[in-house]
Amino acid sequence: MAQLLKVQNFNVSSDGIAAGFGDLQTLESPFGLPSPERLFGWAGATASWPNRTEPGGSRGLDDFLTRDFTHNIGAEIMGRNKFGPYRGPWENEDWRGWWGDEPPFRTPVFVMTHHVRPSYRLSDTTFHFVDGDPATVLAQAQEAAEGKDVRIGGGVTTIRQFLDAGLIDTLHVAVSPIELGSGLHLWKSPDELLDRYHLDVVPSPSGVTHHLFWRK
Amino acid sequence: MAQLLKVQNFNVSSDGIAAGFGDLQTLESPFGLPSPERLFGWAGATASWPNRTEPGGSRGLDDFLTRDFTHNIGAEIMGRNKFGPYRGPWENEDWRGWWGDEPPFRTPVFVMTHHVRPSYRLSDTTFHFVDGDPATVLAQAQEAAEGKDVRIGGGVTTIRQFLDAGLIDTLHVAVSPIELGSGLHLWKSPDELLDRYHLDVVPSPSGVTHHLFWRK
Repeated sequence: MAQLLKVQNFNVSSDGIAAGFGDLQTLESPFGLPSPERLFGWAGATASWPNRTEPGGSRGLDDFLTRDFTHNIGAEIMGRNKFGPYRGPWENEDWRGWWGDEPPFRTPVFVMTHHVRPSYRLSDTTFHFVDGDPATVLAQAQEAAEGKDVRIGGGVTTIRQFLDAGLIDTLHVAVSPIELGSGLHLWKSPDELLDRYHLDVVPSPSGVTHHLFWRK
Repeated sequence: MAQLLKVQNFNVSSDGIAAGFGDLQTLESPFGLPSPERLFGWAGATASWPNRTEPGGSRGLDDFLTRDFTHNIGAEIMGRNKFGPYRGPWENEDWRGWWGDEPPFRTPVFVMTHHVRPSYRLSDTTFHFVDGDPATVLAQAQEAAEGKDVRIGGGVTTIRQFLDAGLIDTLHVAVSPIELGSGLHLWKSPDELLDRYHLDVVPSPSGVTHHLFWRK
């Protein structure tokens, strides 16, 4: 069975925006957006969301999508801006991601950056820092995934880079019914991908519309 | 985390019928229905269907539902009519289910019957035969599941029995756009469950409408 490269639970506005422009990202505003929970709130409301700490939560359609987050995933690839708000050479190695001592990945994670630093482990997640083109980083992640699939976690610039390289097999993008106007676009319209992907458009009772793409 | 009892990928017609009347079931017609693939064909078209032997298959909405089939499932409960077409005392123990040498369950399976027989193993699946009320059988299955969830596989009479006992936590029922007229009903209308369950109704591009229930 081939190892897939998958986008999962990625959130954009109705006008295709996933984050604010890069200089708006700060320690207090990881997405560089006002009220980013308007984009990802649907996921947090489900029973299976990996970061859920309280019991309860919905078990309908949205829960199938969050429950799938870890299914057969053996590694994640992320861009440096998903990893943290700092740019350029590391002043020190104190920053270890946004996720505290129990990151939700529980696999090797490959952070793409021109400024590599030593790998480290937090609970079940090991962070590696790699400087390479998408195909090379994917090969590293697939080897670490030991036969399982690889998640491409974002941010949006990293996903576009892998889309442009033709490396992504499936994408789940949740489109929220809010318009943001300015920021970093995943797309102007999901139709941009239809030359290369099949698409199921699935409105959820929660208000988001799940867009499920898979390679033609 | 509580162990859930779940119905997954259960198929009914638009008029709520899941199988022909019991005396129509034969070795050649496990469902006692003409063309039962009209009910479950949507699942076989997906990439993740456990019985798939060829590459390919869709990876849209329907695939999320079939992919979830084995997720965190530690045991299955089924009725005797799902297990086979024979009724009453076993003439011999030659019948070992419909599924050949590699049953798709890969967990302990508890077959409810008044005519118990010794357990046996086929590949990763062990079949146990138990004579008990739903709550007792559920307790046995939950112990065997070692903390994971339990699937209630059917047939429709068994599911109704567990519904009546108030033991089912979530149900995924795929409703196909065909009317069968006569047979064994899961329901007259899905609304019958709304006093006890939340419901997401999710039309799939494949033509079936997924009904996702979870306990209030």
